[in-house]
Amino acid sequence: MAEVSQGEPGGLALFTDLYELMMVQAYLREGMTAPAVFELFFRELPAERNFVMAAGLAPLLDALEGLQFSADDLEYLRADERFSEEFLHHLADFRFTGDVWAVPEGTLVFPHEPLVQVVAPLPEAQLIETLVLNQIHFASLAATKAARIVLAAGGRRVIDFGSRRAHGIDAGMIVARSAYLAGCDGTSLMAAGRRYGIPIFGTMAHSYIQAHGDELAAFASFLDSFPESTLLVDTYDTIEGVQKVVELRRKMGDRFRVRAIRLDSGDLVELSRQSRRILDDAGLQHVQIVASGGLDEYKLAQFAELQAPIDGYGVGTSLAVSSDAPALDMAYKLVEYDGRPRTKLSSSKVIYPGRKQIFRQTVGSAYDRDVLAPAGAKLPGEGLLKQVVRKGQRMAGALPNLCESRDYAAEQLRSLPEPLRQLTRASSEYTVDIASELESQLNALRQQHL
Amino acid sequence: MAEVSQGEPGGLALFTDLYELMMVQAYLREGMTAPAVFELFFRELPAERNFVMAAGLAPLLDALEGLQFSADDLEYLRADERFSEEFLHHLADFRFTGDVWAVPEGTLVFPHEPLVQVVAPLPEAQLIETLVLNQIHFASLAATKAARIVLAAGGRRVIDFGSRRAHGIDAGMIVARSAYLAGCDGTSLMAAGRRYGIPIFGTMAHSYIQAHGDELAAFASFLDSFPESTLLVDTYDTIEGVQKVVELRRKMGDRFRVRAIRLDSGDLVELSRQSRRILDDAGLQHVQIVASGGLDEYKLAQFAELQAPIDGYGVGTSLAVSSDAPALDMAYKLVEYDGRPRTKLSSSKVIYPGRKQIFRQTVGSAYDRDVLAPAGAKLPGEGLLKQVVRKGQRMAGALPNLCESRDYAAEQLRSLPEPLRQLTRASSEYTVDIASELESQLNALRQQHL
Repeated sequence: MAEVSQGEPGGLALFTDLYELMMVQAYLREGMTAPAVFELFFRELPAERNFVMAAGLAPLLDALEGLQFSADDLEYLRADERFSEEFLHHLADFRFTGDVWAVPEGTLVFPHEPLVQVVAPLPEAQLIETLVLNQIHFASLAATKAARIVLAAGGRRVIDFGSRRAHGIDAGMIVARSAYLAGCDGTSLMAAGRRYGIPIFGTMAHSYIQAHGDELAAFASFLDSFPESTLLVDTYDTIEGVQKVVELRRKMGDRFRVRAIRLDSGDLVELSRQSRRILDDAGLQHVQIVASGGLDEYKLAQFAELQAPIDGYGVGTSLAVSSDAPALDMAYKLVEYDGRPRTKLSSSKVIYPGRKQIFRQTVGSAYDRDVLAPAGAKLPGEGLLKQVVRKGQRMAGALPNLCESRDYAAEQLRSLPEPLRQLTRASSEYTVDIASELESQLNALRQQHL
Repeated sequence: MAEVSQGEPGGLALFTDLYELMMVQAYLREGMTAPAVFELFFRELPAERNFVMAAGLAPLLDALEGLQFSADDLEYLRADERFSEEFLHHLADFRFTGDVWAVPEGTLVFPHEPLVQVVAPLPEAQLIETLVLNQIHFASLAATKAARIVLAAGGRRVIDFGSRRAHGIDAGMIVARSAYLAGCDGTSLMAAGRRYGIPIFGTMAHSYIQAHGDELAAFASFLDSFPESTLLVDTYDTIEGVQKVVELRRKMGDRFRVRAIRLDSGDLVELSRQSRRILDDAGLQHVQIVASGGLDEYKLAQFAELQAPIDGYGVGTSLAVSSDAPALDMAYKLVEYDGRPRTKLSSSKVIYPGRKQIFRQTVGSAYDRDVLAPAGAKLPGEGLLKQVVRKGQRMAGALPNLCESRDYAAEQLRSLPEPLRQLTRASSEYTVDIASELESQLNALRQQHL
């Protein structure tokens, strides 16, 4: 069972694949400790997506800073009998001492663009591969899904309800954080509220109504504790549930301070219209309607188009697992070792060799195109990769806080060309020009291995 | 960042949705602390699946046993200003004191069958909803996917390579554990090897070859450290890579102890055949061929059908995220409170009221059908739900260890009727008869709310 808390140092050092440790022992034995550059990128946008929103950097850096092997870790490795004593002694002193460059969290990125660039002695950069991929891959998937949901909601409130169907404890935390980053308004998950300072939201479950049996009695009792609460009206019959809310208003008079009702099943468009009429007819125009239950960006877009009178959404499973794209073809690849560009050639999957920078060029306030170029290039546009760690230490002021990142993410979405903000694949992808130097380096390496 | 270690008590108490805490405060205020029965089940099998393999119970019980609110947790809740001081004092003493019944890990289950049944004072049973769902839902999804992959592999070795694309730290651990439970042979994830005692496997990455530039030199150096290693042959050109392995054998003579080569890209059927011929022609019949790279159960079934000479598989992303079914319609529902059956009626989703037992009936060694009946019923067949926690304490000997569960899971798969072992949806589902008492209780509750 993973722990929600940050935990003691060393806890994540073994969150690595066996082959990383084997390669590190071999590198050390061979004295291959020169600087390496690894870049984290993806080759293809997943289904229907026109962008990926980068996320997960701050939690990753927290983990990297604390990364060390505990005595227990080393004991486990010793008992495995695969590694040399010399290597285990080396691991005892292991710390990440390299540099990290990354695009800020909330940045929209496109195929072949590095989200994270690690510049470190080869063994260190190799050892952290599993952790870097694990953290950035899913945080970015979840942020991307959340951004699509926020775009579809068209300004209505969106709350993350996904913790129960997220893939484990850490996933629940990552979903809540990525969703807030991407523009959701909060989460139902207390642990994420505490750790990240995200606003928390909650209503009531069917079990509360069921336990009471009588729906009206259940509503009244809940309001005794939480007078401004949202009442769940669909346990037995939605419309009768709404009528009970009206009845409660009559009974309670001015003590009635209910803010919203929640619909969780059935035809939400039709039920929201009927509920709105019943509430309005009773003078309860200020009581909002929130909806939940199997929602995703496509349903939200449909509700907006049909002008369903819904004021906010709770989105769970589809957000929590990025249901239509639960994985991204993301890789962490060596592109330079000891000052020389590197690549892999055998498959049709291109890896441009050499350390890179992304130059983003704008027209007015909208993005026009990116150029992927060697890191040292002087090109127009903003260089998106910024240094965040120097010699293993996080650079002061390099990372914005989560609220600042959320504002930045919103601006990123506003600056995206309109066709790329749609929920389906645009007729043409965002332009990422590959600088000719990268193409010629790739060709040179191909020649070398012919 | 979640922690891999088990962590201090209290760490998971806030892994709950806000509404659970609100409902618990309301229940306590109303004195609604009578025993409740909640059942965890799913209504529909996900795409192409003919069964779900239950998993995640032992880690869940670890978490439940340690569940308590720390001073920090309470401080956060106090600062939120939503809860009463009386309630916060109650939470300070919170422990789970209820009973848990569950099907053993590795059991194959079907729609409407409870995987877990919690019998506890209503507030306690309510509070743990998020955690129970979060842990059992994904562990069972991953075990189900792994079982399909193992069936498709037809006896060839399968290793979990999924940690990098699993949804966070906890997901990586759950995938490795569920995969082993379901019959995979091991994992690449060190942390899972340590915590669960799962065999670990590792080879080498492209970056190792790339860093050396020269492939033959890289192979030779790696073998200096790990003479029996698996060599990755597809960094530049797969067939040339295999020929270099043969060359190495010539150079090294008897010191050559390489056990396998790994193919990670290209047409794996064709490449495995060519590689097998080259190895065999060089007298290297004992060098195995393992394959990886975007594999899933469908590709494995195809390889088996085409008799590709592949001895083992590394399966990553598709296993780690259960790619074709990343979520399951699993719910944790109140079915009884204070001795009286409960349900929810408004949607078309049926919840059978009352506490239940699953009776599994066999013909020979194969499962024939299940009967879902009230818990007290005396019916033929084995009752699958067993008590594992009594008054908050795990019962001695109630849980098998992971290896025993793995054997049990294998037996479950062997006892499944043949058509349900296929990778596509069988023409008819496994029979789960609903006892007439459950139907009539449901109808009685429907009448009551008309």
